[in-house]
Amino acid sequence: MFEVAEAGHKLRASVYKRRAPRVRERLLELQYQLLGKAQFPVLILAHGVEGGGRSETANLLNAWMDPRHIRTHAFGGDEGAPPGKPALWRFWQALPPKGHIGIFVGSWYSEPIERRAWHGMDDDALERSLERIRHFERMLAAEGALILKLWFHLSRKAQDARLDALASDKATAWRVTREQRHQNRHYKRFITAAEAALRETSTAEAPWEIIDGSDDEYRNLAAATLLRDALEARLAGKRPRTAPPPPPPAPPIDRRTLLTSLDYSRRIDDETYDAKLAKYQGQVARRMRSRASAKRPVVVVFEGMDAAGKGSTIRRITGALDARQYRVVPVAAPTDEELAQPYLWRFWRHLPAPGRMAIFDRSWYGRVLVERVEGLVAEADWMRAYHEINDFEDQLVQCGVRVVKFWLAITPAEQLRRFRAREKTPWKRYKITPEDWRNRRKWPAYERAVNDMIERTSTEIAPWHVVATDQKKLARVEVLKALAHALKG
Amino acid sequence: MFEVAEAGHKLRASVYKRRAPRVRERLLELQYQLLGKAQFPVLILAHGVEGGGRSETANLLNAWMDPRHIRTHAFGGDEGAPPGKPALWRFWQALPPKGHIGIFVGSWYSEPIERRAWHGMDDDALERSLERIRHFERMLAAEGALILKLWFHLSRKAQDARLDALASDKATAWRVTREQRHQNRHYKRFITAAEAALRETSTAEAPWEIIDGSDDEYRNLAAATLLRDALEARLAGKRPRTAPPPPPPAPPIDRRTLLTSLDYSRRIDDETYDAKLAKYQGQVARRMRSRASAKRPVVVVFEGMDAAGKGSTIRRITGALDARQYRVVPVAAPTDEELAQPYLWRFWRHLPAPGRMAIFDRSWYGRVLVERVEGLVAEADWMRAYHEINDFEDQLVQCGVRVVKFWLAITPAEQLRRFRAREKTPWKRYKITPEDWRNRRKWPAYERAVNDMIERTSTEIAPWHVVATDQKKLARVEVLKALAHALKG
Repeated sequence: MFEVAEAGHKLRASVYKRRAPRVRERLLELQYQLLGKAQFPVLILAHGVEGGGRSETANLLNAWMDPRHIRTHAFGGDEGAPPGKPALWRFWQALPPKGHIGIFVGSWYSEPIERRAWHGMDDDALERSLERIRHFERMLAAEGALILKLWFHLSRKAQDARLDALASDKATAWRVTREQRHQNRHYKRFITAAEAALRETSTAEAPWEIIDGSDDEYRNLAAATLLRDALEARLAGKRPRTAPPPPPPAPPIDRRTLLTSLDYSRRIDDETYDAKLAKYQGQVARRMRSRASAKRPVVVVFEGMDAAGKGSTIRRITGALDARQYRVVPVAAPTDEELAQPYLWRFWRHLPAPGRMAIFDRSWYGRVLVERVEGLVAEADWMRAYHEINDFEDQLVQCGVRVVKFWLAITPAEQLRRFRAREKTPWKRYKITPEDWRNRRKWPAYERAVNDMIERTSTEIAPWHVVATDQKKLARVEVLKALAHALKG
Repeated sequence: MFEVAEAGHKLRASVYKRRAPRVRERLLELQYQLLGKAQFPVLILAHGVEGGGRSETANLLNAWMDPRHIRTHAFGGDEGAPPGKPALWRFWQALPPKGHIGIFVGSWYSEPIERRAWHGMDDDALERSLERIRHFERMLAAEGALILKLWFHLSRKAQDARLDALASDKATAWRVTREQRHQNRHYKRFITAAEAALRETSTAEAPWEIIDGSDDEYRNLAAATLLRDALEARLAGKRPRTAPPPPPPAPPIDRRTLLTSLDYSRRIDDETYDAKLAKYQGQVARRMRSRASAKRPVVVVFEGMDAAGKGSTIRRITGALDARQYRVVPVAAPTDEELAQPYLWRFWRHLPAPGRMAIFDRSWYGRVLVERVEGLVAEADWMRAYHEINDFEDQLVQCGVRVVKFWLAITPAEQLRRFRAREKTPWKRYKITPEDWRNRRKWPAYERAVNDMIERTSTEIAPWHVVATDQKKLARVEVLKALAHALKG
């Protein structure tokens, strides 16, 4: 697939001199349009063989446009993520906000290509890795990102010549690194690995563009022109078509649902409660301090109808822990930095370190619950969220995170009782707002959303624990028991 | 100093029952006022002896107020900062934004107290550490933070009794940790270290409050009442008086300044330029890759009059590096997350890792340059900034960061020539705005600000390199030479 880029592309100096200023000027205009609208981010991935001009192109784009609105990051394939963080974590942290341009010299492709070339990554592992990348890029595209993937190519011979020329001049010899020499010696292995990766990841929403890197001016103008054209098309409103997400399942025809089928009448007495609470709190405390737990982050998710007791249940967990071990993350209105990023970004930033627990009081499931029911996002957006969420949780579990999810269920009658009680207690009044009453009237819509959510996202690796909370004490014990179990081993 | 808290404070149950609901309700009201105004953050430090009830108090405040607007963090004294980051870095990352409450269980006091108690930290080191803390808290207070420092105390006997009681009950035995037993055995050493730290850091803007932790209800109500009173006073507009900063130096009486005394007429020819540029780029490249450099972050600051050539000079540095080694941080308008934090917060978030270089295109010096000249901040705020900046850079240098600062100087005549040239080049037009012409008219005010800045912040450890840029090529060579020198060894 790289042959086309070995045809010895070259621009006459006069052609470059005539065309470059026009492209440059236009790029700058487009950058300001992008910034003014701030509707989507631009992500440029610069990859290729050593000497092909990735860094040089990043420098060129910074010189041709206003560098204050460009974020350039470089990633090597050998760095990996911090302990307990998924491989994509580094890239999430570096994503450009809407209106800005991000240039990634190296990216999520560096690791699979380098591991395939140098460390014998097998077909299955490569395919899994590329599948994850396709999901990630599809999500970015669906969130609006304009993705430009550039591969700067040199034939083996051209690479030889370029490295030799640099090395022979005392003033530039320092530019030739050991890594470059190594890649040059094993050129074929590298190219074969790259080809496999590129072929499988050239998608409608994020195709690869291969650029001959042997002539600087050709390379510069080719990259700049591709960016100009992509920006023009996108600013004119053209978006790539992406595969539509599957619709949610039809509601059951007998109106019986997971939520209605729960037994809400179970109770425990106070004595049993005290004993069991202490027992499971002790288990949670000990297991969080075990040697195995020191290596693993824990993510606990609480979702539930209003007044189902999220707050008081969370306090029974935190009461069993040292304050250093946990962090409660209440999910409130997003900040402007969060709004300028893909939906899941604001949850990635709160992932816990190994040995620590992050307790999410509401979570990424808001998209398929409140945002779906209230019509805050388009149908296509909440429908694709199931898949994105499963993918997110799968990444967490793959890198050792324990993911424990609780749905706190309540009957409408018990909710009503608690709402009324809240209105009567001075320090609980803040917990009851007109919005709560409004949500209550939409009970059937929420119930359907919850059922769909559980059906779609209760996975082998991250199942939902659905807990009836009509008696709060029983619910607390069940939550702590499930959590203690999840922390085992 | 802890004797007062050993008097066996205790509340009758009936008193607690009567007073607690009132304080709780009021705290919640005050929390919502705080959130509504969003003018300042509240920072509660919870310290004390093991068993004194730090964590329990944090839990209580989370239960009594709306926990969605409280950020609880716990810090141990044994964790330290990541490599290449100052000790205070962890705390900067965790600061609550304006309108929110942060509860730190353990804080910047944990390390000095524990090192003093267990690892024989000497008087000088302790004093240096406490001096840094005083500066930090003074800065936080000057930025508006309400700081409440609580020490939960138990006498040796009370601590014995509490730990024994927990340990003897099977249901609570897990709460007694090895650290608690250790502290209990060496109670006196710990208390002596704590006393030294508290005595030296009880300041007007952030005094310590010592609370008897032997009775749960007394402790709860005492902490909640202190918070209520502090919030009430502050929301009513009462701020602690802080020491005023020293005024900037008077201008020299002969009108000769550092900037006017530079020789702007020096030139180099193209051949020398090419040779020297390559030489120093090579040195920078090699030295950034040296073993010594792998352990040290590099922070490069560029400030200068408009059109002095910051961008093109920065590109000569980045052109010598691999894209993975550096990051250019353009200082643009702060985001809302940044505006909700102390001024320096947005620079702390961009500190580079060891082996990496962060190049700041404009920097924290904006406060004493453009913000001073344009009157964007009160005089007291830019006057205290000199000290805060020196303190910031000192922290960087202390933990191994190389700090290199450049002021790019230009004559008014040369600036005018460049402004006109920019207006004529299509892709440079974005670089020249009405604001640039406006700034130019304020030349004398900027010149004074620059002179004050250099006088105040050119320190032994982080000196300013003042470079005349009337010939850009000479300036670039001088910058690269100085940078190469700073990377030596």
